[in-house]
Amino acid sequence: MSNLKSLELPVVEPEGAPCCPPVTSAALSEADSVKMAAMFKALADPVRLRLFSRVASHEGGEACVCDIQDVGVSQPTVSHHLKKLREAGLLTSERRGTWVYYRVAPEVLAAMAGLLSAAR
Amino acid sequence: MSNLKSLELPVVEPEGAPCCPPVTSAALSEADSVKMAAMFKALADPVRLRLFSRVASHEGGEACVCDIQDVGVSQPTVSHHLKKLREAGLLTSERRGTWVYYRVAPEVLAAMAGLLSAAR
Repeated sequence: MSNLKSLELPVVEPEGAPCCPPVTSAALSEADSVKMAAMFKALADPVRLRLFSRVASHEGGEACVCDIQDVGVSQPTVSHHLKKLREAGLLTSERRGTWVYYRVAPEVLAAMAGLLSAAR
Repeated sequence: MSNLKSLELPVVEPEGAPCCPPVTSAALSEADSVKMAAMFKALADPVRLRLFSRVASHEGGEACVCDIQDVGVSQPTVSHHLKKLREAGLLTSERRGTWVYYRVAPEVLAAMAGLLSAAR
């Protein structure tokens, strides 16, 4: 009975969890393509991509605006791009004292890398 | 003398070759971010991403327009998106008889996946 019950439970994926097999092994569904395209769009701007790489490669895997703002654009522009990256689910943020610290969301990074990896 | 000469030769990477270490291991340069952002931009549209996945997952790793045009948009729109994917270097194309056949450029796919892979 308990086995039967477990079979009935829907598989609930955590938000932003990897959704898709490698692009070389199966065609994307319409819903998944909308989801994944939004992630790629977040990386489709050179400044945003550099900021993302600055956060991702920063010591301890996190960075505050103060650490990464020397990318040649104004501070409000940096904030705007960080907000876009957060909204797309690629970065998470946490306020500690004066600063907001950003981290890469590893499951989102893994979803994008998984989609683009060559199928075995 | 011949050794000296070889040292002077610039390293010429094949066009579209993987450029970048994992985003978690090093910050992207400005030049590389422009190059990589253009690739991600090509995948930043749901229809384009679906077409890309259709080509990538098609039997033999290649597809003609006739194989992949049922994505719910007009044939000229399909052609437009395939052109964008080709221009971004993600697809290569070859005319054979009546049809143009598309293939994923494996080195470009590898460059994007490599950039997004978690550093070791």
